[in-house]
Amino acid sequence: MTTLVQFDFAFDGPWGEAFTSACSDLAADIANEPGLIWKLWGENPDTRRASGVYLFDTPENAEAYVIKHRPRLAAFGVTDPGCSVFSLNLPLSRTTRAPV
Amino acid sequence: MTTLVQFDFAFDGPWGEAFTSACSDLAADIANEPGLIWKLWGENPDTRRASGVYLFDTPENAEAYVIKHRPRLAAFGVTDPGCSVFSLNLPLSRTTRAPV
Repeated sequence: MTTLVQFDFAFDGPWGEAFTSACSDLAADIANEPGLIWKLWGENPDTRRASGVYLFDTPENAEAYVIKHRPRLAAFGVTDPGCSVFSLNLPLSRTTRAPV
Repeated sequence: MTTLVQFDFAFDGPWGEAFTSACSDLAADIANEPGLIWKLWGENPDTRRASGVYLFDTPENAEAYVIKHRPRLAAFGVTDPGCSVFSLNLPLSRTTRAPV
């Protein structure tokens, strides 16, 4: 079952091109995570928050990723990220044109 | 600039097919929101949470939607939804295969 993971956390930057540069190796690594369909990366320098939205092929792969990713965020100083895991509602998502 | 909106909130159901039925008209309406690229719908009956992840074409259209959607959620009993708005980091998102 397609599984949606949402991280949303306070973040001190970097932002924009500097954020891209700082995370490009990490993104290439994340692209190889077992079961990852895709990840969106969000950033907001005004509210000083950042996010990751992921689709995984199974809840098990999503859970394994969350367990792996939390200490990695902690190493960036993100110690208490908001993180929720959901089943994707496919019919409603398709009605609203999500590419799933 | 492509804008990511993440809602994540406590929810009492319905779930699954009943959730789909309850929200099918709403989803058809949301599909016509100005500037909406797509929306993902998440649900988790174990944690009793639900979510919406949206991409909009501009921050202005995203903001207008958030202002419209909050009272609609309140009418469903969701009075204090988590809601964050982000700029989408396109290079990192493309590295992790997001369809953007």
